[in-house]
Amino acid sequence: MNNAKSPDQGNRTGLTIVNTGEGKGKTTAALGVVLRAWGRGYKICVIQFIKAKTGQWGEIKAAKKLGIEWYTTGDGFTWLSKDMDETTARALHGWEIAQGKIASGEYDLIVLDEFTYPMHYGWLKTIEVIDWLHANKPKGLHLIVTGRYAPPELIEFADLVTEMTPIKHPYEKGIKAQPGIEF
Amino acid sequence: MNNAKSPDQGNRTGLTIVNTGEGKGKTTAALGVVLRAWGRGYKICVIQFIKAKTGQWGEIKAAKKLGIEWYTTGDGFTWLSKDMDETTARALHGWEIAQGKIASGEYDLIVLDEFTYPMHYGWLKTIEVIDWLHANKPKGLHLIVTGRYAPPELIEFADLVTEMTPIKHPYEKGIKAQPGIEF
Repeated sequence: MNNAKSPDQGNRTGLTIVNTGEGKGKTTAALGVVLRAWGRGYKICVIQFIKAKTGQWGEIKAAKKLGIEWYTTGDGFTWLSKDMDETTARALHGWEIAQGKIASGEYDLIVLDEFTYPMHYGWLKTIEVIDWLHANKPKGLHLIVTGRYAPPELIEFADLVTEMTPIKHPYEKGIKAQPGIEF
Repeated sequence: MNNAKSPDQGNRTGLTIVNTGEGKGKTTAALGVVLRAWGRGYKICVIQFIKAKTGQWGEIKAAKKLGIEWYTTGDGFTWLSKDMDETTARALHGWEIAQGKIASGEYDLIVLDEFTYPMHYGWLKTIEVIDWLHANKPKGLHLIVTGRYAPPELIEFADLVTEMTPIKHPYEKGIKAQPGIEF
Protein backbone atom coordinates (compact mmCIF):
# COMPACT_ATOMS: atom_id res chain seq x y z
CA MET A 1 0.00 0.00 0.00
CA ASN A 2 2.91 2.35 0.43
CA ASN A 3 4.46 2.18 -3.01
CA ALA A 4 5.61 5.77 -2.77
CA LYS A 5 5.72 7.12 -6.32
CA SER A 6 6.61 10.73 -5.72
CA PRO A 7 9.78 11.89 -3.99
CA ASP A 8 8.20 13.06 -0.77
CA GLN A 9 5.18 10.82 -0.35
CA GLY A 10 6.98 8.74 2.27
CA ASN A 11 7.52 11.57 4.70
CA ARG A 12 4.55 13.77 4.19
CA THR A 13 1.27 14.02 5.98
CA GLY A 14 -1.50 13.47 3.45
CA LEU A 15 -4.33 15.88 4.14
CA THR A 16 -8.03 15.19 3.87
CA ILE A 17 -9.55 18.42 2.62
CA VAL A 18 -13.26 19.23 2.43
CA ASN A 19 -14.63 22.16 0.41
CA THR A 20 -18.27 22.65 1.32
CA GLY A 21 -20.93 25.36 1.60
CA GLU A 22 -23.46 27.01 -0.69
CA GLY A 23 -20.99 29.19 -2.57
CA LYS A 24 -18.93 28.84 -5.72
CA GLY A 25 -15.37 27.60 -5.59
CA LYS A 26 -15.68 24.13 -4.06
CA THR A 27 -14.79 22.13 -7.17
CA THR A 28 -12.78 25.06 -8.51
CA ALA A 29 -10.47 25.17 -5.49
CA ALA A 30 -9.96 21.41 -5.82
CA LEU A 31 -8.93 22.02 -9.44
CA GLY A 32 -6.48 24.66 -8.23
CA VAL A 33 -4.84 22.06 -6.01
CA VAL A 34 -4.79 19.69 -8.99
CA LEU A 35 -2.89 22.34 -10.96
CA ARG A 36 -0.39 22.85 -8.12
CA ALA A 37 0.09 19.13 -7.64
CA TRP A 38 0.49 18.60 -11.38
CA GLY A 39 3.12 21.35 -11.36
CA ARG A 40 5.06 19.24 -8.87
CA GLY A 41 4.75 16.08 -10.92
CA TYR A 42 2.32 14.38 -8.56
CA LYS A 43 0.16 11.48 -9.67
CA ILE A 44 -3.45 12.62 -9.62
CA CYS A 45 -6.89 11.07 -10.04
CA VAL A 46 -10.22 12.93 -10.12
CA ILE A 47 -13.53 11.13 -9.69
CA GLN A 48 -16.72 13.10 -10.22
CA PHE A 49 -19.83 11.69 -8.62
CA ILE A 50 -22.66 13.80 -9.97
CA LYS A 51 -21.68 15.59 -13.14
CA ALA A 52 -22.50 13.93 -16.43
CA LYS A 53 -19.77 12.59 -18.68
CA THR A 54 -19.14 15.10 -21.40
CA GLY A 55 -16.03 16.46 -23.00
CA GLN A 56 -17.44 19.96 -22.81
CA TRP A 57 -16.14 20.87 -19.37
CA GLY A 58 -13.04 23.07 -19.46
CA GLU A 59 -11.49 21.07 -16.64
CA ILE A 60 -11.93 17.78 -18.52
CA LYS A 61 -10.35 19.24 -21.63
CA ALA A 62 -7.45 20.42 -19.45
CA ALA A 63 -7.12 17.07 -17.65
CA LYS A 64 -6.91 15.24 -20.99
CA LYS A 65 -4.14 17.54 -22.20
CA LEU A 66 -2.28 17.15 -18.89
CA GLY A 67 -2.63 13.37 -18.65
CA ILE A 68 -4.59 13.49 -15.40
CA GLU A 69 -6.81 10.48 -14.72
CA TRP A 70 -10.44 11.54 -14.67
CA TYR A 71 -13.66 9.60 -14.12
CA THR A 72 -17.20 10.91 -14.30
CA THR A 73 -19.45 8.36 -12.67
CA GLY A 74 -22.61 10.44 -12.57
CA ASP A 75 -24.78 11.15 -15.56
CA GLY A 76 -26.20 14.45 -14.45
CA PHE A 77 -28.73 12.59 -12.32
CA THR A 78 -29.31 14.50 -9.15
CA TRP A 79 -30.82 14.08 -5.73
CA LEU A 80 -34.12 14.87 -7.46
CA SER A 81 -33.64 11.89 -9.75
CA LYS A 82 -36.73 9.78 -10.38
CA ASP A 83 -34.73 6.61 -10.92
CA MET A 84 -33.08 6.21 -7.51
CA ASP A 85 -31.82 2.69 -8.27
CA GLU A 86 -29.77 4.05 -11.14
CA THR A 87 -28.57 7.00 -9.08
CA THR A 88 -27.56 4.79 -6.16
CA ALA A 89 -25.86 2.29 -8.47
CA ARG A 90 -23.81 5.07 -10.01
CA ALA A 91 -22.74 6.37 -6.60
CA LEU A 92 -21.70 2.88 -5.52
CA HIS A 93 -19.79 2.39 -8.75
CA GLY A 94 -17.97 5.69 -8.25
CA TRP A 95 -17.08 4.77 -4.68
CA GLU A 96 -15.74 1.38 -5.85
CA ILE A 97 -13.46 3.13 -8.33
CA ALA A 98 -12.39 5.56 -5.60
CA GLN A 99 -11.64 2.73 -3.17
CA GLY A 100 -9.45 1.00 -5.74
CA LYS A 101 -7.50 4.18 -6.45
CA ILE A 102 -7.11 5.13 -2.79
CA ALA A 103 -6.06 1.67 -1.61
CA SER A 104 -3.57 1.26 -4.49
CA GLY A 105 -1.15 3.66 -2.80
CA GLU A 106 -0.12 4.87 -6.26
CA TYR A 107 -1.54 8.38 -6.07
CA ASP A 108 -0.38 11.59 -4.47
CA LEU A 109 -3.72 13.36 -4.81
CA ILE A 110 -7.23 12.04 -5.29
CA VAL A 111 -10.24 14.34 -5.72
CA LEU A 112 -13.73 13.02 -5.00
CA ASP A 113 -15.82 15.76 -6.55
CA GLU A 114 -19.37 16.17 -5.21
CA PHE A 115 -18.86 13.11 -3.07
CA THR A 116 -20.75 14.70 -0.17
CA TYR A 117 -24.06 14.16 -1.96
CA PRO A 118 -24.07 10.33 -2.04
CA MET A 119 -23.41 10.44 1.71
CA HIS A 120 -25.81 13.26 2.52
CA TYR A 121 -28.64 11.62 0.60
CA GLY A 122 -27.93 8.19 2.02
CA TRP A 123 -26.92 6.42 -1.19
CA LEU A 124 -23.75 5.52 0.71
CA LYS A 125 -23.51 5.14 4.49
CA THR A 126 -21.20 7.90 5.73
CA ILE A 127 -19.97 5.90 8.69
CA GLU A 128 -18.93 3.01 6.44
CA VAL A 129 -17.11 5.38 4.11
CA ILE A 130 -15.23 6.97 7.02
CA ASP A 131 -14.40 3.60 8.60
CA TRP A 132 -13.05 2.43 5.27
CA LEU A 133 -10.93 5.58 4.91
CA HIS A 134 -9.56 5.18 8.45
CA ALA A 135 -8.43 1.67 7.56
CA ASN A 136 -7.26 2.17 3.99
CA LYS A 137 -6.20 5.71 3.17
CA PRO A 138 -2.42 5.77 2.74
CA LYS A 139 -0.75 8.20 5.13
CA GLY A 140 0.86 10.22 2.35
CA LEU A 141 -2.23 10.55 0.15
CA HIS A 142 -3.89 13.95 -0.16
CA LEU A 143 -7.65 13.50 -0.51
CA ILE A 144 -10.11 16.26 -1.44
CA VAL A 145 -13.87 15.90 -1.10
CA THR A 146 -16.18 18.61 -2.44
CA GLY A 147 -19.90 19.34 -2.25
CA ARG A 148 -22.57 20.93 -0.10
CA TYR A 149 -23.85 19.40 3.11
CA ALA A 150 -20.60 17.72 4.21
CA PRO A 151 -21.68 15.16 6.84
CA PRO A 152 -20.38 15.75 10.40
CA GLU A 153 -18.45 12.45 10.36
CA LEU A 154 -16.56 13.59 7.27
CA ILE A 155 -15.75 16.97 8.85
CA GLU A 156 -14.54 15.12 11.94
CA PHE A 157 -12.29 12.93 9.79
CA ALA A 158 -10.92 15.82 7.69
CA ASP A 159 -7.84 17.94 8.40
CA LEU A 160 -8.85 21.06 6.50
CA VAL A 161 -12.45 22.15 6.01
CA THR A 162 -13.47 25.34 4.22
CA GLU A 163 -16.96 26.68 3.72
CA MET A 164 -17.60 28.69 0.57
CA THR A 165 -20.34 31.27 1.13
CA PRO A 166 -21.97 33.23 -1.70
CA ILE A 167 -21.83 37.00 -1.13
CA LYS A 168 -22.89 38.03 -4.60
CA HIS A 169 -23.78 35.92 -7.61
CA PRO A 170 -24.08 36.90 -11.29
CA TYR A 171 -27.28 34.85 -11.75
CA GLU A 172 -28.92 37.55 -9.63
CA LYS A 173 -28.12 39.98 -12.42
CA GLY A 174 -29.31 37.56 -15.08
CA ILE A 175 -25.82 36.66 -16.29
CA LYS A 176 -25.55 33.02 -17.37
CA ALA A 177 -22.79 30.59 -16.38
CA GLN A 178 -19.69 31.36 -18.45
CA PRO A 179 -17.59 28.69 -20.20
CA GLY A 180 -13.97 28.61 -19.02
CA ILE A 181 -14.99 30.11 -15.70
CA GLU A 182 -17.75 28.03 -14.16
CA PHE A 183 -17.25 24.89 -16.28
CA MET B 1 -9.35 47.28 -27.20
CA ASN B 2 -11.61 44.54 -28.49
CA ASN B 3 -9.11 42.44 -30.42
CA ALA B 4 -11.03 39.29 -29.60
CA LYS B 5 -8.49 36.48 -29.56
CA SER B 6 -10.64 33.56 -28.45
CA PRO B 7 -13.68 32.33 -30.37
CA ASP B 8 -16.32 33.56 -27.94
CA GLN B 9 -14.82 36.67 -26.39
CA GLY B 10 -16.92 38.93 -28.58
CA ASN B 11 -20.25 37.68 -27.29
CA ARG B 12 -19.54 36.81 -23.75
CA THR B 13 -20.00 38.69 -20.54
CA GLY B 14 -16.64 38.90 -18.80
CA LEU B 15 -17.12 38.40 -15.10
CA THR B 16 -15.33 40.17 -12.30
CA ILE B 17 -14.89 37.56 -9.59
CA VAL B 18 -13.73 38.19 -6.03
CA ASN B 19 -12.57 35.40 -3.69
CA THR B 20 -12.24 36.78 -0.21
CA GLY B 21 -12.54 35.74 3.46
CA GLU B 22 -10.31 34.26 6.12
CA GLY B 23 -10.36 30.70 4.77
CA LYS B 24 -8.24 28.69 2.35
CA GLY B 25 -9.15 28.43 -1.29
CA LYS B 26 -9.08 32.04 -2.48
CA THR B 27 -5.99 31.77 -4.68
CA THR B 28 -6.62 28.07 -5.17
CA ALA B 29 -10.08 28.61 -6.66
CA ALA B 30 -8.59 31.23 -8.98
CA LEU B 31 -6.07 28.60 -10.09
CA GLY B 32 -8.93 26.19 -10.73
CA VAL B 33 -10.46 28.74 -13.09
CA VAL B 34 -7.05 29.13 -14.71
CA LEU B 35 -7.00 25.37 -15.33
CA ARG B 36 -10.51 25.43 -16.84
CA ALA B 37 -9.72 28.43 -19.00
CA TRP B 38 -6.45 26.87 -20.15
CA GLY B 39 -8.42 23.75 -21.05
CA ARG B 40 -10.46 25.90 -23.41
CA GLY B 41 -7.42 27.51 -24.97
CA TYR B 42 -7.98 30.92 -23.38
CA LYS B 43 -5.20 33.47 -23.11
CA ILE B 44 -4.40 33.94 -19.43
CA CYS B 45 -2.25 36.22 -17.30
CA VAL B 46 -1.70 35.92 -13.55
CA ILE B 47 -0.23 38.79 -11.51
CA GLN B 48 0.63 38.14 -7.87
CA PHE B 49 0.87 41.21 -5.66
CA ILE B 50 2.27 39.89 -2.39
CA LYS B 51 3.99 36.56 -2.83
CA ALA B 52 7.72 36.57 -3.42
CA LYS B 53 9.17 35.52 -6.75
CA THR B 54 10.36 31.96 -6.47
CA GLY B 55 10.12 28.95 -8.69
CA GLN B 56 9.21 26.81 -5.74
CA TRP B 57 5.45 27.29 -5.89
CA GLY B 58 3.60 24.36 -7.48
CA GLU B 59 1.38 26.76 -9.40
CA ILE B 60 4.36 28.60 -10.89
CA LYS B 61 5.94 25.33 -11.97
CA ALA B 62 2.62 24.41 -13.58
CA ALA B 63 2.19 27.81 -15.25
CA LYS B 64 5.64 27.56 -16.80
CA LYS B 65 4.87 24.14 -18.23
CA LEU B 66 1.51 25.38 -19.56
CA GLY B 67 2.80 28.60 -21.06
CA ILE B 68 0.67 30.83 -18.86
CA GLU B 69 1.97 34.38 -18.34
CA TRP B 70 2.83 34.88 -14.69
CA TYR B 71 4.18 37.87 -12.78
CA THR B 72 5.11 38.07 -9.13
CA THR B 73 5.44 41.71 -8.21
CA GLY B 74 5.70 41.26 -4.46
CA ASP B 75 8.79 40.07 -2.68
CA GLY B 76 7.12 38.52 0.29
CA PHE B 77 6.86 41.94 1.88
CA THR B 78 3.64 42.17 3.78
CA TRP B 79 1.37 44.73 5.35
CA LEU B 80 3.73 44.51 8.31
CA SER B 81 6.61 45.58 6.12
CA LYS B 82 9.03 48.07 7.62
CA ASP B 83 9.95 49.58 4.27
CA MET B 84 6.61 50.97 3.16
CA ASP B 85 8.08 52.91 0.24
CA GLU B 86 9.35 49.66 -1.26
CA THR B 87 6.07 47.90 -0.53
CA THR B 88 4.02 50.72 -2.07
CA ALA B 89 6.31 50.93 -5.09
CA ARG B 90 5.90 47.21 -5.70
CA ALA B 91 2.11 47.45 -5.49
CA LEU B 92 2.09 50.37 -7.94
CA HIS B 93 4.37 48.47 -10.29
CA GLY B 94 2.08 45.43 -10.15
CA TRP B 95 -0.96 47.57 -10.86
CA GLU B 96 0.81 49.19 -13.83
CA ILE B 97 1.50 45.77 -15.30
CA ALA B 98 -2.11 44.78 -14.64
CA GLN B 99 -3.44 47.92 -16.32
CA GLY B 100 -1.37 47.23 -19.40
CA LYS B 101 -2.60 43.65 -19.63
CA ILE B 102 -6.23 44.53 -18.96
CA ALA B 103 -6.36 47.45 -21.39
CA SER B 104 -4.63 45.46 -24.15
CA GLY B 105 -7.81 43.48 -24.81
CA GLU B 106 -5.63 40.48 -25.61
CA TYR B 107 -6.56 38.31 -22.65
CA ASP B 108 -9.52 36.13 -21.83
CA LEU B 109 -8.72 35.79 -18.15
CA ILE B 110 -6.57 37.90 -15.84
CA VAL B 111 -5.98 36.97 -12.20
CA LEU B 112 -4.89 39.66 -9.72
CA ASP B 113 -3.81 37.49 -6.82
CA GLU B 114 -3.87 39.13 -3.36
CA PHE B 115 -4.78 42.41 -5.01
CA THR B 116 -7.19 43.27 -2.18
CA TYR B 117 -4.27 44.05 0.15
CA PRO B 118 -2.81 47.03 -1.73
CA MET B 119 -6.31 48.52 -1.72
CA HIS B 120 -7.18 47.59 1.85
CA TYR B 121 -3.92 48.98 3.20
CA GLY B 122 -4.17 52.13 1.12
CA TRP B 123 -1.10 51.60 -1.09
CA LEU B 124 -3.52 52.07 -3.97
CA LYS B 125 -6.72 54.12 -3.84
CA THR B 126 -9.63 51.69 -4.26
CA ILE B 127 -11.89 54.26 -5.88
CA GLU B 128 -9.26 55.06 -8.52
CA VAL B 129 -8.75 51.37 -9.26
CA ILE B 130 -12.50 50.83 -9.68
CA ASP B 131 -12.93 53.97 -11.81
CA TRP B 132 -10.12 52.78 -14.03
CA LEU B 133 -11.70 49.33 -14.36
CA HIS B 134 -15.08 50.86 -15.22
CA ALA B 135 -13.44 52.80 -18.03
CA ASN B 136 -10.94 50.24 -19.30
CA LYS B 137 -11.92 46.64 -18.59
CA PRO B 138 -12.91 45.01 -21.89
CA LYS B 139 -16.45 43.63 -21.78
CA GLY B 140 -15.34 40.07 -22.57
CA LEU B 141 -12.47 39.88 -20.09
CA HIS B 142 -12.86 37.65 -17.03
CA LEU B 143 -11.07 39.23 -14.08
CA ILE B 144 -10.41 37.50 -10.75
CA VAL B 145 -9.26 39.32 -7.63
CA THR B 146 -8.28 37.38 -4.52
CA GLY B 147 -7.39 38.25 -0.94
CA ARG B 148 -8.86 39.04 2.46
CA TYR B 149 -10.63 42.29 3.25
CA ALA B 150 -12.12 42.95 -0.20
CA PRO B 151 -13.06 46.65 -0.14
CA PRO B 152 -16.79 47.45 -0.46
CA GLU B 153 -16.25 49.34 -3.74
CA LEU B 154 -14.66 46.22 -5.25
CA ILE B 155 -17.54 44.03 -4.07
CA GLU B 156 -19.97 46.55 -5.58
CA PHE B 157 -18.09 46.39 -8.89
CA ALA B 158 -17.83 42.59 -8.95
CA ASP B 159 -20.31 40.12 -10.45
CA LEU B 160 -19.44 37.10 -8.33
CA VAL B 161 -18.15 37.32 -4.78
CA THR B 162 -17.43 34.31 -2.60
CA GLU B 163 -16.27 34.28 0.98
CA MET B 164 -14.05 31.39 2.07
CA THR B 165 -14.51 30.62 5.76
CA PRO B 166 -12.24 28.29 7.73
CA ILE B 167 -14.17 25.56 9.52
CA LYS B 168 -11.19 23.41 10.43
CA HIS B 169 -7.51 23.92 9.74
CA PRO B 170 -4.61 21.46 9.94
CA TYR B 171 -2.34 24.01 11.64
CA GLU B 172 -4.59 23.53 14.68
CA LYS B 173 -3.36 19.94 14.75
CA GLY B 174 0.24 21.00 14.23
CA ILE B 175 0.40 19.85 10.62
CA LYS B 176 2.57 22.11 8.45
CA ALA B 177 1.62 23.49 5.04
CA GLN B 178 2.03 20.73 2.44
CA PRO B 179 3.77 21.23 -0.92
CA GLY B 180 1.51 20.55 -3.90
CA ILE B 181 -1.52 21.35 -1.81
CA GLU B 182 -1.10 24.77 -0.26
CA PHE B 183 1.67 26.02 -2.50
